[in-house]
Amino acid sequence: MAGTLYTYYRSGAAHRVRIALALKGISYQSVAIHLVRGEQLRPEYRAINPQARVPAFQLPSGEILLQSPAILEYLEETAPKPPLLPADPIARAKVRAVAAIIGCDIHPINNVAVLNALRALGQGPDAVQTWIADWINRGFTAVEQLIGAEDWCFGAGPGLADIFLVPQIFSARRFKLDLAPYPRIRRIEALAAAHPAFTAAAPEHQPDAE
Amino acid sequence: MAGTLYTYYRSGAAHRVRIALALKGISYQSVAIHLVRGEQLRPEYRAINPQARVPAFQLPSGEILLQSPAILEYLEETAPKPPLLPADPIARAKVRAVAAIIGCDIHPINNVAVLNALRALGQGPDAVQTWIADWINRGFTAVEQLIGAEDWCFGAGPGLADIFLVPQIFSARRFKLDLAPYPRIRRIEALAAAHPAFTAAAPEHQPDAE
Repeated sequence: MAGTLYTYYRSGAAHRVRIALALKGISYQSVAIHLVRGEQLRPEYRAINPQARVPAFQLPSGEILLQSPAILEYLEETAPKPPLLPADPIARAKVRAVAAIIGCDIHPINNVAVLNALRALGQGPDAVQTWIADWINRGFTAVEQLIGAEDWCFGAGPGLADIFLVPQIFSARRFKLDLAPYPRIRRIEALAAAHPAFTAAAPEHQPDAE
Repeated sequence: MAGTLYTYYRSGAAHRVRIALALKGISYQSVAIHLVRGEQLRPEYRAINPQARVPAFQLPSGEILLQSPAILEYLEETAPKPPLLPADPIARAKVRAVAAIIGCDIHPINNVAVLNALRALGQGPDAVQTWIADWINRGFTAVEQLIGAEDWCFGAGPGLADIFLVPQIFSARRFKLDLAPYPRIRRIEALAAAHPAFTAAAPEHQPDAE
C-alpha cells in the first residue's frame, strides 16, 4: 500500500494517522494543509474533504478516506501487521474505548474550530486555556484509570489507544498542562519518545513544522 | 448474548447502542441513569464507568464495555447478523467516516457537559442555541454530501452510519433546527420512523422517558 496523506503538523487527528502509517511501515506522500492560514477551506480541498478538515488519506486508486478513526480501522483491516488491536473482542473494545474517550470527548472539544467559536463568543485567553485544561483533565483522569500499569496502554507493543493518546499528550504539553497526576500517561509519553515510529510521526519532525 | 445497558432515554450515545441491540435482536436489561439529576456522578456508577457517562454495557460475565463506538464495534464482531458494516474495507471506511463526523465532531460538542460549561462561562440561552445549531449544521452539511441518494445511508439496510445519524436527528429536532437543507438526512429520518428496531430504541419509548 501507499497513498497520499493530507496533513498538518500540529493536527492531532493527522498525527494519529502518521503514527499508524509509520508503525505499519506504509510509505506515503504528505500534502500539508495549513489550518491556521485556512487552506482547508479552499474549494480544491473541499473537493477532497467536504468537511474541510485534516486528515484525508487518498489511496493509489484515487479513493479518499476521511476521519482518522475510520482511516485507522481501514489500515488495520488492510495492513494487519503489526496489529493495532488485540484479537479478543472484549480486549478490542477496551482499547477502542480509550481511543474514543480521547477521539470523541477530549480532542474535538479543544480543536481550533471550537476554540475560535469560544473566542467569537467573547471568551478571552484565560477562559480558553481553562477550557482546554478542563477537558483534557476530565478525559485523562478516566484514561489513567483504564490503561495498564506497565508497558504501552494495553500490552507490550503500541496500539490504537497509544495512537490516540500520544498526540493528545503533545497537545497537553503545548498548552502547558501539569501531567504529574497521570503517571501512566507519562509512561506512555516516555515510551513514545524512544520509539522510531512515534518520533517519525511527531509534529516537530514534519516537513511543514514551523 | 444478553447484557445490562446503563442508559438515559435522551442520551444520543446510549440511543445508538439501543438501536444496534434492537437491530441485532439482542435482549438486555436497562438501568436508567438520570443525567440531569446527576446520577452518573455517584460513586457506585463511577465504579462502573470512571468517565461518569452513559452508555456502559455490562456483559453476563461481568465485563463492562464503555464508549458507544467501542460497544458498537464489539456487537458487530460478536453478533455479526445483520451486519452494521459492509464487507469491503473501503466501503467500511466510508460508513465509519460518517459515524465519526457525528460521533466526534457534532455530538460531543453539544453534550450536556459542554453546554453546562458554556453556561458557566456566562453564555445565555440564545448563545447556547446558536452553538448547538452551528455544530449540527456544519456536520450535517458534510454528512448530506457523503451519504447515498436513496435507501439508508449506505445501502438497502440500516447500518452504523444510520445508527449514529438517527439519534443526532432526534437532537436536532429537540433543538428545533431547520432540516430543510438536508433532504437525504430527512429521508433517513423517515425510514427510521417506520422501522421497528429504531422505534423500539427511540427516546420516547424508553421506560425512563419523561
